[in-house]
Amino acid sequence: MNCPRIPLILLLFSSVHGFQYTNLANYVDSHQEEYVEALREWVAVESDSSNILKRSELHRMMELTAKKLQQMGGSVNLIDIGNQELPDGQIIMLPNVVTAQFGNDSDKRTVCIYGHTDVQPAKLEDGWATDPFNLTEINGNLYGRGASDNKAPVLAWIHAVEAYKSLNMELPVNVKFIFEGMEETGSNGLDAMIQSHRDTFFSDVDYIIISDCGWLSRKPALTYGTRGNCYFFAEVEGPKQDLHSGVYGGTVIEPMTDIIGLLDTLISPSGKILIPGIREAVAPLSDEEWKMYQDIQFDLDSYMSKIGVSQLMYNNKVDLLAHRWRYPTVSIHGIEGAFSDPGTKTVIPAKVIAKFSIRQVPNMEPVMVKKQVTEYLHSMFAKRRSPNKLKVTMVIGAKPWIADIRDLLYEAGKAAVKRVFNTDPDLIREGGTIPIAKTFQDVTGKSIIMLPIGGFDDGLHSQNEKISRYNYIEGTKLFIAYLYEVSQIKKSSV
Amino acid sequence: MNCPRIPLILLLFSSVHGFQYTNLANYVDSHQEEYVEALREWVAVESDSSNILKRSELHRMMELTAKKLQQMGGSVNLIDIGNQELPDGQIIMLPNVVTAQFGNDSDKRTVCIYGHTDVQPAKLEDGWATDPFNLTEINGNLYGRGASDNKAPVLAWIHAVEAYKSLNMELPVNVKFIFEGMEETGSNGLDAMIQSHRDTFFSDVDYIIISDCGWLSRKPALTYGTRGNCYFFAEVEGPKQDLHSGVYGGTVIEPMTDIIGLLDTLISPSGKILIPGIREAVAPLSDEEWKMYQDIQFDLDSYMSKIGVSQLMYNNKVDLLAHRWRYPTVSIHGIEGAFSDPGTKTVIPAKVIAKFSIRQVPNMEPVMVKKQVTEYLHSMFAKRRSPNKLKVTMVIGAKPWIADIRDLLYEAGKAAVKRVFNTDPDLIREGGTIPIAKTFQDVTGKSIIMLPIGGFDDGLHSQNEKISRYNYIEGTKLFIAYLYEVSQIKKSSV
Repeated sequence: MNCPRIPLILLLFSSVHGFQYTNLANYVDSHQEEYVEALREWVAVESDSSNILKRSELHRMMELTAKKLQQMGGSVNLIDIGNQELPDGQIIMLPNVVTAQFGNDSDKRTVCIYGHTDVQPAKLEDGWATDPFNLTEINGNLYGRGASDNKAPVLAWIHAVEAYKSLNMELPVNVKFIFEGMEETGSNGLDAMIQSHRDTFFSDVDYIIISDCGWLSRKPALTYGTRGNCYFFAEVEGPKQDLHSGVYGGTVIEPMTDIIGLLDTLISPSGKILIPGIREAVAPLSDEEWKMYQDIQFDLDSYMSKIGVSQLMYNNKVDLLAHRWRYPTVSIHGIEGAFSDPGTKTVIPAKVIAKFSIRQVPNMEPVMVKKQVTEYLHSMFAKRRSPNKLKVTMVIGAKPWIADIRDLLYEAGKAAVKRVFNTDPDLIREGGTIPIAKTFQDVTGKSIIMLPIGGFDDGLHSQNEKISRYNYIEGTKLFIAYLYEVSQIKKSSV
Repeated sequence: MNCPRIPLILLLFSSVHGFQYTNLANYVDSHQEEYVEALREWVAVESDSSNILKRSELHRMMELTAKKLQQMGGSVNLIDIGNQELPDGQIIMLPNVVTAQFGNDSDKRTVCIYGHTDVQPAKLEDGWATDPFNLTEINGNLYGRGASDNKAPVLAWIHAVEAYKSLNMELPVNVKFIFEGMEETGSNGLDAMIQSHRDTFFSDVDYIIISDCGWLSRKPALTYGTRGNCYFFAEVEGPKQDLHSGVYGGTVIEPMTDIIGLLDTLISPSGKILIPGIREAVAPLSDEEWKMYQDIQFDLDSYMSKIGVSQLMYNNKVDLLAHRWRYPTVSIHGIEGAFSDPGTKTVIPAKVIAKFSIRQVPNMEPVMVKKQVTEYLHSMFAKRRSPNKLKVTMVIGAKPWIADIRDLLYEAGKAAVKRVFNTDPDLIREGGTIPIAKTFQDVTGKSIIMLPIGGFDDGLHSQNEKISRYNYIEGTKLFIAYLYEVSQIKKSSV
């Protein structure tokens, strides 16, 4: 990043000048019912990108998104990003990516805001208390699929721009939007689109803002890192077909016994990764970090009660947060090819594929993790002297992303939070992976901030997803304030 | 068993007397096209007991079976064995059990022959080379679902009785049949039916014959034992719902890690069961048994090539057969609740249920096995100091069955094999479980023989199931001879 560091106090001072925040905030407050209605309209569109039967709804969602931006006078494009090939060979069209631009003043900084308007699947019978596609307000919470992930944040950004325009206030920065419709299934087609628009759409972008995550507690947060994901398939193949366990059990070396033995060498009961080289590669925890974690508002008891467990892997806040965000971990997801239905089946599965992933962190490199895991599993397998065949494949190698929290984007974030919420934000990381952040970073070379407005308990991907009216409306104000604060970077740093 | 032992030579001598085997064998040879047509008609009925959509076909199959027996002049009953409750609460009728009786001479012994006319599922697209429900002859093999399991053996028994009747020869024994239609899904309703008919249908039965298994090689065999089956569910429950492995990985003690660790304590890579007490309970291998196994015709190389493996758990015949038939083994079948689909999913499963079974043998007791496994897993789990909850359940506790090979039923079997095939049979056991054998033994107190006519390579439950024309036709002759040989037990032993 190119900007010199300036003290927070300077930013705060400069930001007071000429910014009619109160007018804008009042406008938001007096229009909040319209914002809720806009969210209701969007939630009603079942834009589930994982279900091809809902593809027409997804296309409609992208058109609604584009229409909304057009009505605000933006320069809008619906970008064809090609087709999707289904496992059965069928070809279907990917949803268009929507881009929009508001303002083209070369004296101003240009921000690009990323979001998505596709959603995870949801069915009432999964255990929802209300119809997931009919936004329902209960005790100040707005329940519906996609409410927090990511429809309300996208709308909040749109409303933030709209507020400036409605009050005939000049936007403090040029604003570009890029909204996609395949995020929930891996952002199919987006990497190539970003690559091919590097020298056009992205050429004048200074900063990238992502609001596709949540706070850690009731306190606002800025997110400065995500873990990567090295996802492995370990396949053990034995007999040429499944065998009856009565007839053949005891005579063959069973692939399931082998794979269980291998999986059991990955991680200890206390969470220690046993693959040589992994732990050694991790960037050491600095005293500064330790101090930061110590200061974060985070209650272990409410975390436990939210998950429904009686004990966590670590019983102090710093260790827990560090292992959630900045240390690697191994999760075993399941085994394909074995018997997984209810009931009983007396089968010796002939070929089993274990799925596990390592959330990796700086300074681990996916290519090295792949080598370490593959060599280790093969050496463990050799010890078993099994005649079966082992194949280890890394099917995802998504890198972690980390921002420099001294970047002025974060200073602007702190100032905006202070203005709206009258508190300092927590500086947090995400344990999960948002690969698009790393793509933006690598392709555009620009600084990125993750500026969440979702609540810590919004239940993303789960039943009864919601966003609170408070987070939605105050979040809109936060975005308004942020557009101003980020514009101040230029003034102060040129 | 009540019969004194008599030397084989005496049986052979007495069996020559008055038995017009050649006439009967000629009759079978000259009617073999009709027998193949009868099998074709039966195979065409998709009597899949596991698929409720095929239930009307299954009812039709039982009616066809009854009709065939009625046409031969038997005293036939279709016995209502009640209803089946489906997982969704729906109630459907179980297929009737068909019983029949031929002859009621109190001076003769009475045999009861058990079989089933339901089949496993089959679809052409599963990898069948021919339509599974259209019997197709290729190179002397009759391909079709249920051909070997168990329609041809049932027909061979019916044709054996028919041959005597067509030639106006007196049946040497009274013959009773009991044919069911739920064998492939666990003989639902049959145990109760046997119990309730103990003092009626079964009261005058002397011997029970089951022909629902196969030879070990190209050599005919008599089967004198089956392993039991203790099937376990080991459930580990952690968080109250599935968690995102990125967001929560590293902070929770994952149920999958626990269950993998537990499963890995069951059996060593070399096949040694690690649960204390299990191996100690097994009846020791006697020198006699060792000698018997040594004499059995069994080729390790063709066994390996049939299964498609390059190495077996044991590389000598005696150890291999002993571990197939008379030693226990542990097979891990799979894990319910984990991710088992193709592709990737970044989930921490909240509750996982591992399925594994122990094929147990004399002198292991299911109730003791349950105790040993449960205590062992709980002690291993305690060492992990996991906050998750472990529940161990034994959902099947089917006992092994073993006959005394000195029983005259087996002497009769040897004589019949000698007469038809001019060789001595192998005396073999089944690694699998046929729980009905143990039920017959326990409820009726009668001696039981398993007299197989299926080939070693018939592919039961698999694609391209078949029976060879040779096994079907010579098997019919074997049954004809067996009815005579078993009648000689009475003469010689009274």
